Amino acid sequence: MKGLKVAVIGGGSSYTPELIDGFIKRNHELPVKEIHLVDIEEGKWKLDIVGELAKRMIKKAGLDTEVILTLDRKAAIKNADFVLTQFRVGGLDARARDERIPLKYDVLGQETTGPGGFAKAMRTIPVIMDICKDIENLAPNAWLINFTNPAGLITETILKYTNTKAIGLCNVPIGMVKMVANMLEVDSERIKIDFAGLNHLVWGKCVYLDGEDVTDVVIDKLTDGAELNMKNIPDLKWDEDFLRGLKMIPCPYHRYFYMTDDLVKEEQETAYNGKGTRAEQVKKIEKELFKVYENPNLNEKPSQLEKRGGAYYSDAAVSLISAIYNDKKEIHTVNVINNGAIKNISDDVVVEINAVVDATGANGISLGELPIEASGLVEAVKSYELIAAQAGVTGDYQKALQSLVSNPLVPSVKVAKALLEDIIKQNKDYLPQF
Amino acid sequence: MKGLKVAVIGGGSSYTPELIDGFIKRNHELPVKEIHLVDIEEGKWKLDIVGELAKRMIKKAGLDTEVILTLDRKAAIKNADFVLTQFRVGGLDARARDERIPLKYDVLGQETTGPGGFAKAMRTIPVIMDICKDIENLAPNAWLINFTNPAGLITETILKYTNTKAIGLCNVPIGMVKMVANMLEVDSERIKIDFAGLNHLVWGKCVYLDGEDVTDVVIDKLTDGAELNMKNIPDLKWDEDFLRGLKMIPCPYHRYFYMTDDLVKEEQETAYNGKGTRAEQVKKIEKELFKVYENPNLNEKPSQLEKRGGAYYSDAAVSLISAIYNDKKEIHTVNVINNGAIKNISDDVVVEINAVVDATGANGISLGELPIEASGLVEAVKSYELIAAQAGVTGDYQKALQSLVSNPLVPSVKVAKALLEDIIKQNKDYLPQF
Amino acid sequence: MKGLKVAVIGGGSSYTPELIDGFIKRNHELPVKEIHLVDIEEGKWKLDIVGELAKRMIKKAGLDTEVILTLDRKAAIKNADFVLTQFRVGGLDARARDERIPLKYDVLGQETTGPGGFAKAMRTIPVIMDICKDIENLAPNAWLINFTNPAGLITETILKYTNTKAIGLCNVPIGMVKMVANMLEVDSERIKIDFAGLNHLVWGKCVYLDGEDVTDVVIDKLTDGAELNMKNIPDLKWDEDFLRGLKMIPCPYHRYFYMTDDLVKEEQETAYNGKGTRAEQVKKIEKELFKVYENPNLNEKPSQLEKRGGAYYSDAAVSLISAIYNDKKEIHTVNVINNGAIKNISDDVVVEINAVVDATGANGISLGELPIEASGLVEAVKSYELIAAQAGVTGDYQKALQSLVSNPLVPSVKVAKALLEDIIKQNKDYLPQF
Amino acid sequence: MKGLKVAVIGGGSSYTPELIDGFIKRNHELPVKEIHLVDIEEGKWKLDIVGELAKRMIKKAGLDTEVILTLDRKAAIKNADFVLTQFRVGGLDARARDERIPLKYDVLGQETTGPGGFAKAMRTIPVIMDICKDIENLAPNAWLINFTNPAGLITETILKYTNTKAIGLCNVPIGMVKMVANMLEVDSERIKIDFAGLNHLVWGKCVYLDGEDVTDVVIDKLTDGAELNMKNIPDLKWDEDFLRGLKMIPCPYHRYFYMTDDLVKEEQETAYNGKGTRAEQVKKIEKELFKVYENPNLNEKPSQLEKRGGAYYSDAAVSLISAIYNDKKEIHTVNVINNGAIKNISDDVVVEINAVVDATGANGISLGELPIEASGLVEAVKSYELIAAQAGVTGDYQKALQSLVSNPLVPSVKVAKALLEDIIKQNKDYLPQF
Repeated sequence: MKGLKVAVIGGGSSYTPELIDGFIKRNHELPVKEIHLVDIEEGKWKLDIVGELAKRMIKKAGLDTEVILTLDRKAAIKNADFVLTQFRVGGLDARARDERIPLKYDVLGQETTGPGGFAKAMRTIPVIMDICKDIENLAPNAWLINFTNPAGLITETILKYTNTKAIGLCNVPIGMVKMVANMLEVDSERIKIDFAGLNHLVWGKCVYLDGEDVTDVVIDKLTDGAELNMKNIPDLKWDEDFLRGLKMIPCPYHRYFYMTDDLVKEEQETAYNGKGTRAEQVKKIEKELFKVYENPNLNEKPSQLEKRGGAYYSDAAVSLISAIYNDKKEIHTVNVINNGAIKNISDDVVVEINAVVDATGANGISLGELPIEASGLVEAVKSYELIAAQAGVTGDYQKALQSLVSNPLVPSVKVAKALLEDIIKQNKDYLPQF
Repeated sequence: MKGLKVAVIGGGSSYTPELIDGFIKRNHELPVKEIHLVDIEEGKWKLDIVGELAKRMIKKAGLDTEVILTLDRKAAIKNADFVLTQFRVGGLDARARDERIPLKYDVLGQETTGPGGFAKAMRTIPVIMDICKDIENLAPNAWLINFTNPAGLITETILKYTNTKAIGLCNVPIGMVKMVANMLEVDSERIKIDFAGLNHLVWGKCVYLDGEDVTDVVIDKLTDGAELNMKNIPDLKWDEDFLRGLKMIPCPYHRYFYMTDDLVKEEQETAYNGKGTRAEQVKKIEKELFKVYENPNLNEKPSQLEKRGGAYYSDAAVSLISAIYNDKKEIHTVNVINNGAIKNISDDVVVEINAVVDATGANGISLGELPIEASGLVEAVKSYELIAAQAGVTGDYQKALQSLVSNPLVPSVKVAKALLEDIIKQNKDYLPQF
Repeated sequence: MKGLKVAVIGGGSSYTPELIDGFIKRNHELPVKEIHLVDIEEGKWKLDIVGELAKRMIKKAGLDTEVILTLDRKAAIKNADFVLTQFRVGGLDARARDERIPLKYDVLGQETTGPGGFAKAMRTIPVIMDICKDIENLAPNAWLINFTNPAGLITETILKYTNTKAIGLCNVPIGMVKMVANMLEVDSERIKIDFAGLNHLVWGKCVYLDGEDVTDVVIDKLTDGAELNMKNIPDLKWDEDFLRGLKMIPCPYHRYFYMTDDLVKEEQETAYNGKGTRAEQVKKIEKELFKVYENPNLNEKPSQLEKRGGAYYSDAAVSLISAIYNDKKEIHTVNVINNGAIKNISDDVVVEINAVVDATGANGISLGELPIEASGLVEAVKSYELIAAQAGVTGDYQKALQSLVSNPLVPSVKVAKALLEDIIKQNKDYLPQF
Repeated sequence: MKGLKVAVIGGGSSYTPELIDGFIKRNHELPVKEIHLVDIEEGKWKLDIVGELAKRMIKKAGLDTEVILTLDRKAAIKNADFVLTQFRVGGLDARARDERIPLKYDVLGQETTGPGGFAKAMRTIPVIMDICKDIENLAPNAWLINFTNPAGLITETILKYTNTKAIGLCNVPIGMVKMVANMLEVDSERIKIDFAGLNHLVWGKCVYLDGEDVTDVVIDKLTDGAELNMKNIPDLKWDEDFLRGLKMIPCPYHRYFYMTDDLVKEEQETAYNGKGTRAEQVKKIEKELFKVYENPNLNEKPSQLEKRGGAYYSDAAVSLISAIYNDKKEIHTVNVINNGAIKNISDDVVVEINAVVDATGANGISLGELPIEASGLVEAVKSYELIAAQAGVTGDYQKALQSLVSNPLVPSVKVAKALLEDIIKQNKDYLPQF
């Protein structure tokens, strides 16, 4: 059993203690020798704080894993076994702009969905392409586990335009399993959900409890007020007739597509009159978090981290890495090429599905057809993602416009163009390709 | 050469002289013995007026074709060779409601696209299902040529839920060919357009002049102000960057998807402060038209009919019938099952494509892939159509809701539900299935 | 944990002690309350002998599982949780005829492949259809685990023409894993093979040792004389150039397709001058086996059973049942509907692939494309199977002829017809459908 | 109307007068300025004879088309509008070897089907690749009309491995239409056959007379002794049960797959004891033909040419060229990429189907599914072709072996290897790639 080298790009993230906690918990099966936390100059102060906490956590756990803090990405990637990407180009300020720009045009302002997600993708693609080049040159056998949002679109870009071995990961599916288990008051191990769709647009086609179909029961609970939501999404209730007609479990993010009008209003109110956009709120939370992290006596994941969101992040990431490393043949919900798993969705695009994960990677499990209640929306959003990936890689302005026009949340070419102009202007430092 | 029997359901339509004119012009190759103009009690006065004009037109042309005016649909269908459906359940009053209901919710109000098209489909499906039952019983070898809007959705319903041999037809593609020919100042025979998409959502993937690709030239003309439009659609200009990125020719109806916001505003203004919705305008035009038709000295298609829209209707319909009857192996743009013609669109759904038409019907011509700039929207709208067809046939309220939710022009479940309630209430006389 | 009811159709088989042994070994996770061994009048004497041995084995193991010997199939199936089919219509005598008939025409004579498999399928289909009817009526939630050969074709028939929940199983894939492990001198747990193809026509597309691709190493071993074979197949050596060009691992049965001429000669020699066909040899082995079984002091699986073939049978069957019962999400190689798992093979046909097995059944794992070196042969043999299933269900003589003509081992229509006449004549007691 | 330049590679062929005749007949719609007849040094004497006849024919017809006889292929191709390939690498001597080699191993010996076709493909591929390179460099807009056999495999190679615009053509489909018309005693214009399959393995899925399905009538005629055959194929009768079960019209070449045993015997007899293989017979016919051609008074296509076979060759070729040149949108049966036209056959392979031909090329017409009675054989033979194309282009010995193994007419790896060795040895002058 050789020791593993792990590189974490965006290592100064406030999430890092969550991740370190995950490595500590799975230490018995995952012999990590070095964790390289990589960040850029602007993030050095955060890297230093969170990195020192990471070291204290490792020390307290009695492990000999070495934590290296560095701005030298290439050195960190060289010969790595796993590269994790959790960076955010432009930081929370850029995210706040992503959230505010669309609201001017009465369009949804959100980090991953709609024009905000588009802007984030355009900033992220040049950087992820560079990282992949480094991996191909310096660690061609490494697995890239991508968390950077919009995770589906970024994974699509990686798998279409580079030769990096990559899997996209998100905490929404595992979160849904836990929430459903909670709803049914059973252990989450007993729940299986047939996930199908795209990242942040994934449906539970069928929910099983000990192998028995309990989808209707879950829908009953949901129409009866049970909660299935994430921290960062307003908890608007689902319409009962809608859920019964859908016959599937929507993910929390589906609210952005199914309740767009109310959410735009809610966002505008929060942004203009209230406590600020989600990014602006998170900035405050992070400030407090880093103060907590700085405490030299703190040597474990602090409870305040939970407020930040990202629950189950370490669970999802480290258990996936372990499944690969230990050749586990275990089922994870991941973002991979469809390859026929969802029969009526394009074969060669990235989807979010259940897959068998082992040392060879993630192979999707055949799911049959996605009901037409979902498949049309999936193809529409996927078209947007494919064109966005192309625009992000090439910097083609007209493709960028097509991409926004193709996004179901953008109401017209005119608005798409205004949004694009605004996005390019406000992100000019981060969009070398345009 | 035996004489043909043609049944026209909705024979009292103001379009009928156009159709009669078409039969007269093609009389040399299409020996029609009987034309049965069928209508219902409420439309009897129109049937009488337009039917007498039809008789005078036939007489003037010196043909021995018999024109029969009747309210007995079964008798008209019995042993017919061709059945044409051009009826409108609820007439122009229902259409006006279809146009006005969505506007209340700031949603596009249009006869075929959006919730208006949905409402029209719900009214039409019970009637078309009955007609198809009649055809199966009384004229199983007859071809049903469907013009009734929303033509794509209705043809989808016929081909999915009945055993009738049917082809859906629309004057938009032929109109686009003529407009492009006009733009390029060439004879329309020299123009070929590779059409692909759905009815009223069809793109010209490629335009050829004498077999040479001139798509870019046409896009140049369009961005330079050339017109490509129908009578009933406001002539909003296309964005140049958008067209150049699209690299295809949109159909006039695409404005409803690409310029939704401006069109909703325009419709609201026209409906509330101006000359009324399109249906209300057409009502006035029709009133005048029928006055003209009543003139016992009129024995040809009057020039005023052009204002009504529906140009090339007779061309499209009668030349299609002739291609079938004469086993012509001629190319027509029709609504038929995809069957692999557009590679990246579902196989078993109705699409609008070029097809070879002969005595065996219409067989699509392989087109390859529809660019992703279009395919996502096609799948989204097709999902809506498929669910709407199901709702229309079964009267399932929850499916009807899903259908509206799936329509890209409906912004949320909440609005979809309000629309559905309103539509059902205002159409209660025509929706036996709900 | 409720006790399970298992019905074994063809319970008098000489394999039964193997199966009982499997249930005993997995007793800790599989609480079987009743095992019903079902047979028909002609097999009663075998059922009695093997059934009593089964009882003694259970007793020795100290279990309270009840073993019921019965000729009443309906009673055995009623409320069963699992139905296993291991029957053989016409017994070994019929098999001997299946092997001898083709040899007359210089065609391969084999139990599952070629005309012999066809004949066996024709005899089996009427019986399996009856069994499925019983299951649908008396135990609709039961899982049917089908071992009856030709297992792929019979499973195809079940899944196309009945509503029974069924999985087809064969010991070839598990055998190949064990043989490859043996070749590489590693524990078989460390080997994963990506199986793809049809039953008895399955390739190892890729072989992994601890997740690392070792296909080339295995091919090296094979070309170097290593063995990968079953008891019942002559061990002809593979051509080195052939294996290197194939770049996949053939299954032992592939010899029937790739070495047809030599095998026909070998079979003819064995049948005419030597020790008799395989069935005739097995008859002798069985006679001895049943003598051993009769010994009232024998209370465990005797070592002589190994000669009979069918190694790993209990492993494959009982571990599959346990994976379903315990909702294990474990990977098994089974015969199920393709459903997109092999991208370039028809979607709606039964294939032999790796699948995730849990309480909901077996869901194939996406494999991507099967190389064209294999896909053409798969489609050819699958066509034969599909037509044979149709012929077996309907008794359509012309379809039966088409089926034989479509079998790649049958050289011409003329030979196909002679074979069909002979098969029908020699099996007239077992072919009610013809 | 500019004058066309046509280059005919293999211009010294005995078929050339047929082709010239075709150009003369269509002169009114096809203004050919120059016909370049190209051959190689070894064929110069034939080129001279047939070329002079061509000139006399043109002169007699009163046309100003210039006929150029040349050994300079590049000059002939430069700026050509159409390039026709009808060459035969190694001439009839090589063909005779292709026919004789397989017979030694009791395998079918035929020019296009089986190992003979494989050998011919291996010789042809290096030459056709060179020609395509010339076309790409010197006449990138030219259409290559490929007649060189095996036409399907060669067209597959061109379309997979070069960027030449090419259509594969064969006289079998047009011949079948004429023979069916003859059988039904109607004009061939009234017959339409839905062709589907591969070159020399094409079925008439449905036959229409004036658009009415008469497939059953044709099958009745065929089972009643009517002839549907080519000059070069022994006229063995079809089995009635087989034809009725097939429910499609086989092509004459299907005999090689359905009556293999009898045909091998027939070929062996002809080759060893009789009049020689087909190539050897043709050699004699050609000798006589060229004597006839030499007659300076001959200025039209001589009647003796009919014996040579290749009926309808000029019809098929020149009418195809005219359909392209005149943008006719006419239906021709050609070899093109499937592209979804046959739904259950791989999308990206060359098939023989009906296609709409115009200035943009040939676009397949959707046919739906090919019955499983044919689809398995098609996929098997197509796999062979794809591997053969790969072997022919790369010279990979192991792929060449795989290719022969994949051919349904080759009984085993052992025979495949013996054949391959023999073929390579006997063709060493023509196989630079091996």
